[in-house]
Amino acid sequence: MSNPTDLPKSGTPEATELDGTVQATLTAVQEFIGPRLEAATTLSDDAPPRLVAAMRHALLAPGKRLRPALALEAARICGGSWEQAAPAAVAVEMIHAYSLVHDDLPAMDDDDLRRGRPTCHRAFDEATAILCGDALQPLAFSTLATELPATTAGEACRVLALAAGAEALVGGQADDLAAERGWITDIADRPTVEQVDWMERVHRRKTGCLFLAALDLGCLAADGTQAHRDALAAYGRAFGLAFQIADDLLDAEGTEADMGKRVGKDADRGKLTFPTVLGSVASRERAAELTAEACAAIAPFGEPADSLIALARWITARRK
Amino acid sequence: MSNPTDLPKSGTPEATELDGTVQATLTAVQEFIGPRLEAATTLSDDAPPRLVAAMRHALLAPGKRLRPALALEAARICGGSWEQAAPAAVAVEMIHAYSLVHDDLPAMDDDDLRRGRPTCHRAFDEATAILCGDALQPLAFSTLATELPATTAGEACRVLALAAGAEALVGGQADDLAAERGWITDIADRPTVEQVDWMERVHRRKTGCLFLAALDLGCLAADGTQAHRDALAAYGRAFGLAFQIADDLLDAEGTEADMGKRVGKDADRGKLTFPTVLGSVASRERAAELTAEACAAIAPFGEPADSLIALARWITARRK
Repeated sequence: MSNPTDLPKSGTPEATELDGTVQATLTAVQEFIGPRLEAATTLSDDAPPRLVAAMRHALLAPGKRLRPALALEAARICGGSWEQAAPAAVAVEMIHAYSLVHDDLPAMDDDDLRRGRPTCHRAFDEATAILCGDALQPLAFSTLATELPATTAGEACRVLALAAGAEALVGGQADDLAAERGWITDIADRPTVEQVDWMERVHRRKTGCLFLAALDLGCLAADGTQAHRDALAAYGRAFGLAFQIADDLLDAEGTEADMGKRVGKDADRGKLTFPTVLGSVASRERAAELTAEACAAIAPFGEPADSLIALARWITARRK
Repeated sequence: MSNPTDLPKSGTPEATELDGTVQATLTAVQEFIGPRLEAATTLSDDAPPRLVAAMRHALLAPGKRLRPALALEAARICGGSWEQAAPAAVAVEMIHAYSLVHDDLPAMDDDDLRRGRPTCHRAFDEATAILCGDALQPLAFSTLATELPATTAGEACRVLALAAGAEALVGGQADDLAAERGWITDIADRPTVEQVDWMERVHRRKTGCLFLAALDLGCLAADGTQAHRDALAAYGRAFGLAFQIADDLLDAEGTEADMGKRVGKDADRGKLTFPTVLGSVASRERAAELTAEACAAIAPFGEPADSLIALARWITARRK
C-alpha cells in the first residue's frame, strides 16, 4: 500500500486503480443491498400505496451505498459475513434516506433534485414526504430488531437510535440550519479556529455519527471485540470528517451534471464550509491528514482492511 | 362492578365516582411519568438548545398520559411494577408526542393550537418542528434499548417500531390524509358499512396500534405471559376504537375551551367521522359495545384490572 497521505492525482494510473478497486467494492455492495432494500419496503396492504411508493422512491434511488458498505465491510474484517450484517446495512441506509427526504423539504433546505431525480416532496407532495421519512425511521429499527439475533438486537437499536438522535444526526442538522438562518449570529465573525471547530462539531453529528453507527453495527453483527469496535470508531471519526471536507470541496467545485444535485448552494447561502473558511488547499491537506488517520486506525486488521483503506483514500480523491 | 355497557350518564353520582377513580389513576401516572419525561429530555450540549426546547414543549405539555397509563397499568396487572415499565411508558409518550408535532404541521393538518398551547411549529418554526419530531422518535428507541434489560430490549424495540411504522401509525395518518385530500375519491359515495370499515382501519392504525404497543410493552417489561399479552391485545383493540369514536363525538360536540384545541375541524373538512357516518346515537352505542368488549377481555385478571376497566368506561363517558 502506498502512503495514504499521498493521495493520487485525478487521472493518474494510481487514481484509476484506486477508483477501480473502490468501484468494485461499491458495485458488489449495491448488488447485495439492492434486493434487500426492495424486500424491506415490500409491505402489507396496511401501508398505503402512495406512502410506500414515496419510501421506495427515497430508498431505492441509485446511491453509492457508502453506509451499507461500511457496515458490511466492518463485519467482514471482524471475521463475520455480509449476510450477518445485512440488517445493519439496510437499517443505516433507511436512516440516511429518511434524513435526506426531510433535509430536502421546503421548510428545510428546499431542494428539488437529489441523486439526479426529483426530491420526494417534488415527486409526491410535502405531507407524503414528511410521512415517508417518519415511516423509514421505525422501519430501520424494526429491521434491526426483527432480523438480528435477540442477543444483539437491543444493543443494535441503541447504537442506531443514538446516532439518529438529537445529540447526533438531528442535532447536527439543527445546528447547521441555525447557523444558516442566522439564529446563531456570531459564527461568521469568529476566529478561523473556532469556525473550524464549529463545522467539525456539526459534521461529526450530521454525517459522522451515522458512519460510526454503520461500522459499529457491522462489528456488532459479526460479534467483533471491543478492540475491533474501538479501531473502527477511530477509522469512522476520521473517515466521516474527511468525507465532509471532500463533499464541501465538491459542492464548491463540482458540476450539477456530475453530482446529480444542485451545487454551489452552500456558497450561495453564505454557509460556512471548509473551502470558504480554510481555502481549498488547506482543506485538501486536512482531508489527506484525516485519510491517513483513518487508514492508520485500521492497519492492525491487516490485509482484510484493504477495502476500507481504499475507500478512505477514494473518498477524498473522488469527483462525485 | 356495574355492567360496562351501561355507561354512566354525565353528572350522575356514578359518573362522578368513575371520573374520580380514573382521575386518581391518571394523576398518579402524570406524577410518576412527568419527572421521567423531564429527565429523558435533559440532553448533552451536543443537542442544540432550540431543538431541545421544542422537544420539551411537545413532550412536557400537560396531557392525559393515557398511553403511559396503559403501559404502567398493564405491567402492574401482569405482576410487575410501574418502575419496570417506566421506559416503556416514556417511549410510547415520545412516539405519541412526535406524531402530534408532525400532524400539526402546515403541510399536514395545519393546526395552531394543541393541548391549549401553540403547536410546535407556531411556538418555534416549521424546520424545528420537523426536527423535533425526528429527534423524539429515536429517543423513544434509545430509551427502551438503554433502560430495559438486554433480554427484552430488542423485542420492545420491535413492538414499538412496528406500531410507529408505515403499516401502523404512519400508514393510518397517510390514509386519513389521502381521504381528506381527495386522493381516494370514492369514500364519500361508498355504502355506510364500507365507510365504517375504512374508518376503523384508519383508526386501528393511527391510534389503536400505539395503545396496543403501550399495553404490550408494559406486559413485556413485567415479563407477562403470552396469555397476558393476548388478553391485553383484545382489550387494547376495543379500547382504541372506543377512544376514537369518543374523540370524534367530542370533536363534533365539544367546545374549544374544553378541548384545548380547535374543534369541529373534522366536519369543516368534510372528513368521515363516526358521528357523520353512523349518527351520534349509533356511534355512542358502538362505543359502549366496544367498552364492554374491552372490559370482558381483561376480566380474567380479576380485581387488579379494575383501573383499566374504569379507564375503558371513562374513555367513552369523558367530556374532554
